[in-house]
Amino acid sequence: MSATLHIVKIGGRLLDDPGLREQCLKSFSGLEGPAILVHGGGSRASSLAEEMGVEVRMIEGRRITDDSTLEIALMVYAGLLNTRLVAELQALGCPALGLSGADGDLIRAHRRPAEPIDFGWVGDIDRVNGKLLYSLAGQGLRPVLCALTHDGKGNLYNTNADTIAAEVARALASDYTVNLWYCFEKEGVLGDVNEPKSLVRSLDQAGFERMRSEGSVASGMVPKLHNAFRALQGGVNRVAIGKAGYFGESISTYTELVL
Amino acid sequence: MSATLHIVKIGGRLLDDPGLREQCLKSFSGLEGPAILVHGGGSRASSLAEEMGVEVRMIEGRRITDDSTLEIALMVYAGLLNTRLVAELQALGCPALGLSGADGDLIRAHRRPAEPIDFGWVGDIDRVNGKLLYSLAGQGLRPVLCALTHDGKGNLYNTNADTIAAEVARALASDYTVNLWYCFEKEGVLGDVNEPKSLVRSLDQAGFERMRSEGSVASGMVPKLHNAFRALQGGVNRVAIGKAGYFGESISTYTELVL
Repeated sequence: MSATLHIVKIGGRLLDDPGLREQCLKSFSGLEGPAILVHGGGSRASSLAEEMGVEVRMIEGRRITDDSTLEIALMVYAGLLNTRLVAELQALGCPALGLSGADGDLIRAHRRPAEPIDFGWVGDIDRVNGKLLYSLAGQGLRPVLCALTHDGKGNLYNTNADTIAAEVARALASDYTVNLWYCFEKEGVLGDVNEPKSLVRSLDQAGFERMRSEGSVASGMVPKLHNAFRALQGGVNRVAIGKAGYFGESISTYTELVL
Repeated sequence: MSATLHIVKIGGRLLDDPGLREQCLKSFSGLEGPAILVHGGGSRASSLAEEMGVEVRMIEGRRITDDSTLEIALMVYAGLLNTRLVAELQALGCPALGLSGADGDLIRAHRRPAEPIDFGWVGDIDRVNGKLLYSLAGQGLRPVLCALTHDGKGNLYNTNADTIAAEVARALASDYTVNLWYCFEKEGVLGDVNEPKSLVRSLDQAGFERMRSEGSVASGMVPKLHNAFRALQGGVNRVAIGKAGYFGESISTYTELVL
């Protein structure tokens, strides 16, 4: 049996709220064995865009990454968030090492086709350099990944952090017994988004499709669940979506995904 | 005899001018054997401060790093510049991996004492984790370092890139035959800053002090030369200051520092 690797994804409110953020980082630092943190963005990208007078353009609820927005993504994700998270983890004794998808050719992507919607500098992943992550983890380091990828031709792309977490998990599934934790501020997948007691403890693809057709999955959860099932199908040992700061052995409230 | 390691420092105009920048990166990519790139900032930090309405405060020609200025340094040095340089190097086939001083606990520093001048979030280096750089270089990776350090307590500091290059060179001087190249837009140390033909081909500490007392060293060169001599005194094999894009075996115009 291969060693267990924990991959933890955090984003949004967990990054913006200092208390939640600290709790997440403490839990991550306390994990046994190799571990990788993947983080999304927080609210700083939007507030910076406002300060810089950069217009935020959305189509169908999704942000368009034009030149200025990519610059902001580089500055906030790779600069501000990644560097600060690494420094905060180091202060907790966690041997963090920050990476974008360009570092060590970690994540190759191509620009998403401009049809039907041109999302700009948004990349879809081609491959993850699992060998590099395996080697860094083997040196006792804990990679901290921001949501940027590159194409090997000098272009950088904004890429969904949930997708990065799933693809990284798949890429390492033959080297490790991978446990993937999607952490957010809710208890897990809820039948009723306002009712924590409606937590779904176990969810398979058929159950997901059923909930979806009933309209009982929050729209933001749909792509997250797609990524989660894709990871499971790719040989990842466990995938759970749950309340941040309680992942690992002591996780108490989460939805376990099953095939 | 130990293997040769090239450490190349670039900054300022070399980062801002696309042609010079490309030339530097091509030269760096073309170096044989292990190599480390250290970069300073370019003009984007100042223009971003202006866009964000952050006042640039200088005392005795040096920038004061308050909270907002540190945020800008993180965004521009670690985010924009470091990530883009890594992606551009990857496009040239160079296995670049970007690092701040917090990554892997690479460079520990403490806040510079507030007396006589409080420079804010400016750090003076305590130690460099040479073991990490040696290990990364041993994996065939080329570290790309931005000018940020940390204190192990969660604080990040703005730190002079010339100093980082010198301290990194010293830290690796027992593992490698280290050649340190300070690259900029001039031919090297000039007796007359407007006359390329006044290039000083070789400079020792006594010669430096003599030039300085005669007022013939440009003020910006003084700290650079201090760092350069400190590296030489710390066992670095060669230290040269010269025209960017021509370092390595083909360097044609530079000042060689000698003890």
